[in-house]
Order: sequence, then structure tokens, then C-alpha cells
Amino acid sequence: MLFYIVLLYCCSLAGVLSQLSIHSRHGRECVSPCFSLQQRNNSTSPKIKVDLDNSTGVAVLRMQSPPVNSLSLDFLTEFCINLEKLEMDKSCRGLIITSTLSKVFSAGLDIMEMYGKSPERCGEFWKAVQEMWLKLYGSNMATIAAINGSSPAGGCLMSIGCDYRIMADNPRYSIGLNETQLGIVAPFWFKDTLVNTVGNRAAELSLELGLLYSAPDALKIGLVDQLVPEDQVLSTAQDTMSKWLAVPDHITKSMMRKQTIDKLLSNREADITNFVSFITKDSIQRSLRMYLEMLKSRKA
Amino acid sequence: MLFYIVLLYCCSLAGVLSQLSIHSRHGRECVSPCFSLQQRNNSTSPKIKVDLDNSTGVAVLRMQSPPVNSLSLDFLTEFCINLEKLEMDKSCRGLIITSTLSKVFSAGLDIMEMYGKSPERCGEFWKAVQEMWLKLYGSNMATIAAINGSSPAGGCLMSIGCDYRIMADNPRYSIGLNETQLGIVAPFWFKDTLVNTVGNRAAELSLELGLLYSAPDALKIGLVDQLVPEDQVLSTAQDTMSKWLAVPDHITKSMMRKQTIDKLLSNREADITNFVSFITKDSIQRSLRMYLEMLKSRKA
Amino acid sequence: MLFYIVLLYCCSLAGVLSQLSIHSRHGRECVSPCFSLQQRNNSTSPKIKVDLDNSTGVAVLRMQSPPVNSLSLDFLTEFCINLEKLEMDKSCRGLIITSTLSKVFSAGLDIMEMYGKSPERCGEFWKAVQEMWLKLYGSNMATIAAINGSSPAGGCLMSIGCDYRIMADNPRYSIGLNETQLGIVAPFWFKDTLVNTVGNRAAELSLELGLLYSAPDALKIGLVDQLVPEDQVLSTAQDTMSKWLAVPDHITKSMMRKQTIDKLLSNREADITNFVSFITKDSIQRSLRMYLEMLKSRKA
Repeated sequence: MLFYIVLLYCCSLAGVLSQLSIHSRHGRECVSPCFSLQQRNNSTSPKIKVDLDNSTGVAVLRMQSPPVNSLSLDFLTEFCINLEKLEMDKSCRGLIITSTLSKVFSAGLDIMEMYGKSPERCGEFWKAVQEMWLKLYGSNMATIAAINGSSPAGGCLMSIGCDYRIMADNPRYSIGLNETQLGIVAPFWFKDTLVNTVGNRAAELSLELGLLYSAPDALKIGLVDQLVPEDQVLSTAQDTMSKWLAVPDHITKSMMRKQTIDKLLSNREADITNFVSFITKDSIQRSLRMYLEMLKSRKA
Repeated sequence: MLFYIVLLYCCSLAGVLSQLSIHSRHGRECVSPCFSLQQRNNSTSPKIKVDLDNSTGVAVLRMQSPPVNSLSLDFLTEFCINLEKLEMDKSCRGLIITSTLSKVFSAGLDIMEMYGKSPERCGEFWKAVQEMWLKLYGSNMATIAAINGSSPAGGCLMSIGCDYRIMADNPRYSIGLNETQLGIVAPFWFKDTLVNTVGNRAAELSLELGLLYSAPDALKIGLVDQLVPEDQVLSTAQDTMSKWLAVPDHITKSMMRKQTIDKLLSNREADITNFVSFITKDSIQRSLRMYLEMLKSRKA
Repeated sequence: MLFYIVLLYCCSLAGVLSQLSIHSRHGRECVSPCFSLQQRNNSTSPKIKVDLDNSTGVAVLRMQSPPVNSLSLDFLTEFCINLEKLEMDKSCRGLIITSTLSKVFSAGLDIMEMYGKSPERCGEFWKAVQEMWLKLYGSNMATIAAINGSSPAGGCLMSIGCDYRIMADNPRYSIGLNETQLGIVAPFWFKDTLVNTVGNRAAELSLELGLLYSAPDALKIGLVDQLVPEDQVLSTAQDTMSKWLAVPDHITKSMMRKQTIDKLLSNREADITNFVSFITKDSIQRSLRMYLEMLKSRKA
């Protein structure tokens, strides 16, 4: 059952647990005063902050949507608009993605986008998730994830969509495509990206068990490339980026990733249909409601 | 020449060597009194014993066909019938495969099924080998191989057909797709399963040299997932299984393996034809006869 | 810009640097007296020496084209003729490739073949590069690279085209497909061969950054299989070869590599067209001229 599984999932997030919560786009959907407050803040301030250094050609994209940088439709839309702007800006050659929040990079897809929504809205949301991955995995810029906190599910997808991953050397931070633990099957392009990163067998184990890896374990299987002390994640990313930008160009990247990207491009509608028909099932919706009520009672 | 190669193969099996022998289905085909005796036993008793624990939903399948759990047509048929029963039993969600024999998990395909048999019979045998793999690799149950002894060739195929492999921590036990050492080319789906497990390069080396790996070496290349003391293989498998069964479902497994399984399904007849035309060659049959005569003289 | 990048490349070759130079097929194209001298020598002596030991069935192919065993059209043609002869010689079952030069196995493709040449000539050259790889990667012989010096770019391609790689245990020697550093994109079959050897992620990092690995680092990622003291590279290759030849046959090898080879075979003309249109671009030719002038001034 989704109910106890999500519970497991929370427990496994350890450091993030105390802050983990669900927020929605509209005040009236909020499940507790706490969320409501956050929503008001979010509605007036951007969820993402981008600083482009014209002297180096490197942009830093900071995710700043408390409490856990959930990937809501609004968040994803803002993310994609920013990515597209940078992509078209010839002066920008490198992108570093990081978080302004303490202890969390991104907790992944916003569960509120999947609960009580119309099929149309669910489809719109999923299309935005696809768009985020397509833009990131296929970016012409050199991309580095500066993972300064936990990064489960969609946060992990965002990380492995980059060219290089630097994570805070803190065993309390975890990363992984743990959708299976949530009763959700990772779609084929999540799977393909993970296989490309850690190989077939590690991906199989990881996806079948919905594993979250501590930072040191993530390094061992190659899910991240490097661990550094927490306060050096961003500066190391900057140093590493200068090495990437010293390389003439990145046609090679497109050669490595084209097949994986083309597979989603030619199956995009079917993938949306699959997601919508799964997530709008009564059984799945019931589980989500139980989960939300549990969260509410914990807050009370 | 197959002759000296099979000799090499025996030598490499070390611990199993003293027991290694060939048995047949019918008394009249027996090549020594010793085999005959074993055959009488086998004809009246099942080669496989299955215990399903309804409280946990976990079945333990014990291979108990002395001397070495050879995969004969009878054995494979019994194996597949048992697997199918468990697959259809909704109360069974996990399967552990192990051996009741000392020092051996399974020595692989029964050579007597390939010697002096009609093409029809050889084809029937090969179809049963395919069926075993298709049922195991594509099982909806969580499957764990509790490898409590050596597991060459077909025994290795059975192991890598499972979701997880726990092996006795004994350097005298070995595992590997060593068909090449026997003058036999591993078919493409053996190769695909191995590549999925240990990656392309390790599979290439392994298959081209027909390598058998000691338990510690098998762990190093990822051919098995875990080593434990010999007397804890089964109990560790039980503990591990409970973790697998805590995960909601296994659609992910089908997504990971579908392509590999479909490749055999759409080439099944051609694969049988290939095997039959190879194994019925005069040169191969001559080598097999020399091998059998050598075994007879060793016994005398 | 290619200019400064090639400079980087030279620096990374360290030990080879002092000797690195460009040579051409015709005296009139020589860019310095030094090259001219080498050319005269080369025109009268073979660039490759082959010794076949009929008692073992093992041929040793020695590359002896100073200063750095550059893969010129002449060199490649000689290489392919020798390979074809050995392939057709039933008494030859194993091939060891090594270098007679100090500190370098092969520095890769000869840059002079790409500068100031007609499209037809460039196409002829590229076809020879393809031919070398097709013959080596698809060889029916067991092939071992005895890498007794640095082996960048095309030298690395030649190495990973073999079945097994033994490298001198010297951290000053490096190996890798560093074409990206030279402003050149490795073609898809370079990429495929590397992925087959070190896996997708290591290949991606390696190609996107144009990395050269020191011998110890190359061992770590599986780019070479074994390191031995410099004076034991060839003898270890001989010992290893005897193990490979003890295995009955190598149909397995063809099964492992067929798909990768077929991909080039069915795209051969397009691959040549791509290369020619890229290398004959004005911008690329300008960069090559700047590089050659820099080399000239260094020599002066």
C-alpha cells in the first residue's frame, strides 16, 4: 500500500523528515496553515533565481522554493523558462544547479500535483516533467549539479540529467530514484537515464527496490561523481565547470544522449497517457488521500 | 578439441570433481553401474522439492537430483511445472532457489541430453532450456538464488535469471558461463543476461575465455551480489526476500527485462535450429563420445 | 580554438612531448629538416615488422615508424595488408601488437593527413582508418595490445580494438580517446568501442572531456586490463596469449562485436562524408596551419 510506503520513504529521508510537507498552488487546497503560509510567499516570489556571470559564461541556477523545492507545475514551468533563456544566450556556456535550502536539493515531484486533479491537469503536469528532463539532458551547455542536500526521486532525475554531479559529503543526505517505494513505477526514460549513469545491473537493483543511497554509497555506484565538504559544493562546481568549458565543444554529448532523448520524443504522448491513467486510478488516489491525512494529523 | 577441454573444465570445478558424473534418463543408457544406481533413485523420486510458506508468501525450491543437479529434460520439465504453479498461486510472491546437494548448486546442462540423441529430441531439450530461462527471468515473483555450491554453465544461467544472488563464501565454489571451455558457444540470450548482470566488457572477457569465477571473484565483478558463510546462505536469502517483498510491486522488473526476453521470444525457433544443427555435428558427437569413454575408464 | 587545445594535448603527453612532431609522406611537404630526415628513412623501410612463430601460432606485429608511430595513410595501408595476411594464414591464431619506439605505442592519426589535402585524399585516409578498426575489432585471431608507451587518440582506438590490453606500469604513459581536446568529435564507432570497453558513463565523461588517463587510472576504469613492469609487457602478452589460444574458438567474440561492426559497415560512406566535410572546413584548416607553424617555431 502506498500509505505505509510513503511513510518508509519519509523515514529514509532522515534529515529532511522534519521539514517534509506537501504544498499546493492555491491557498484553498492547502492542508495546513503552514503550507498556506508558504504558498503565499511562493506566489509572489520566484521559485528559482539565476545569476549569469558574463565574464565566465557560467550561470548558477538556485532553487529556492521552501520547504523542499518540490517540482510543482509552477516550479517546472519556471525552471524550463529559465533554462530556455540561458540556452539561447550565446554568452552562457555552463550551468550549475543548486539549492538555497538547508539539507535538501529537491524532494522531487510535488505530490499535490497528482492528488484530486483532473486528467487534463495531470497530463499538463507530466508534460512539464518531460520538458524539464528533455531540456536538461539535451542541453548544449555544460551542466553540473551541485547537490547540497537530499535529492530523492525527481530531484535525482534532475541530478542525473546533468553532465556531472558533486554532492555534499554528508551520509545523512540521500539520493536515488525511489519511486518504487512510493508505489509508482519510474517511467522508461527515468530508467534509461539511470542505466546510462550507473549501468544496467545497479539500475535494476536500484529501481526494483526503490533504493535511496547515502552520499558515500551514491559515490560507490557512480550515481554521483564526487563528494566534497558541504561548504565547498558550489565552489568545487565552479572550479570543475572551468575545466569543462576549456573543452572546445559538446557535440560529443549529443552523440552520447541522442538515442535516449529520441526515445522519449517519439513516445511522448503515450508516456503522458500512461501516467495519467495510472495516477488517476481510484486506488492510487485513495492512498494519496490517506497519506495527506496522516501528514495533517502529524502537523496538528 | 572438446575432449581435453572438458577435462580442463572438470579440473576447474575442483571440489565437485570427485563427484562429477553423467547420468541419463533410462537405465539402459547408463554408462557405469554407478550412474545406473543414481538413475533408479531418480526415476522414483522428484528431482525438485518445493515448500511454500503461506504466512510469508515465500516458496523455497530445492534442487535434489544427485550427483550434481544436472539440467536434464526431465529436470527442466519438473522445474518449469513447479515454477508455473507458483506463478499462478496468488499467495506466493517470492521464490528462493537452492540445492540440497553438498558442494554443488547445479552443474548445468546434462551432457547426456546432447549425446546420441535424435535432432527432434535435441530440439525438445533446448526448448526446455529456453522455457526455464523465460519463466525465471520473466517471473512476476521476486526471485533469489541461494547458491550453496558450484554453479557452472546452466547453473550460472539459472542464477543470473534471478533478481538477486547470495553465494556461499567458499573460494572452492565457482560460478560462470564457461560453455566456451566446452567448445560450445553460449547462445545470444545467455550472453544478453550476462551483459545485463556484469556489463559488456566483463561479459566479453568471461565468455571469450569461458571463465569460472571463485565466489570472491564472482562478487568482485558483480556476478553475485553477496557472500555469506555457507550455513547462512538460505537464512540470508529469507531475510533478503522480506526486504524485496516490502516493495509494492515489480512492474519495474518487467521494464528492465522485457527487451531481452522479447529477443528470444521472436527468435525461438531459429535458436533451436541453431543448437540442434551444432550439437548433432559428427565432430561434436565424436568429442562427446571420447569424453564419456574417458569418464567410464576413470570409474573402472 | 584548435590551436591552444593541441598545445594542451602536447602538454598532457609529457614524456612524449620532446619527441612529438608531425611528419608527412612526401619530402616537399615536410615542415622542418627534422621531419624530412625521418621521411627519407621511412620511405625505404617498412613501418611495421611482423614475426610469426609457427610453433605457437602467435604473430608479433611491431610498429616501428618514428618518431611516434603516427597513423598515416601509408602506415594504415601497411598495417591492414599485414593483418589481412595473418588473417588468411591458418597457422596464425594469435596477434600481439606492440611498438619498437621508446615511450610511445602510437600517437594516433597523422595530422598531416588532414592538413591541406583534397577532399578525395581525406576520404581515402578516413577509409583506411575505418578499415584498420574493422579488421582489428572483427579479427578471428585472438588479439592483445602490448602497450609499452603512450597511446592517445587513434593509438587508443587500436588498443581497444584488441581483445586484451596489457600496459607498462608507468604513470607517465597515458591512453585515451582525447579527440575532443583537439577540437575533433570522436566518430560514433570510436564511441561505441569505448562504451563496450568501459561502459556508458565512463565513456561519456571520457569523450566529453577528451580525457587522457595515466596507466594506473586507465586500469581503474577498465580501459586497460593489466599493468606490468615496462620490460615485461611483451613477455606477459605472450603468456596471456597462450591462455587465450587454449580456448577452442572465438565465435563468441563475433557475437559480442557484430552489432557494433555492422553499424559502421552500414554507415561507412556517410561516416566518410561527415569526416571530409568537417576536416576540410576553413576554420579547421586554419587551426591546423597555426598548430604546424607553432611546431615549426619550436623546432627553430
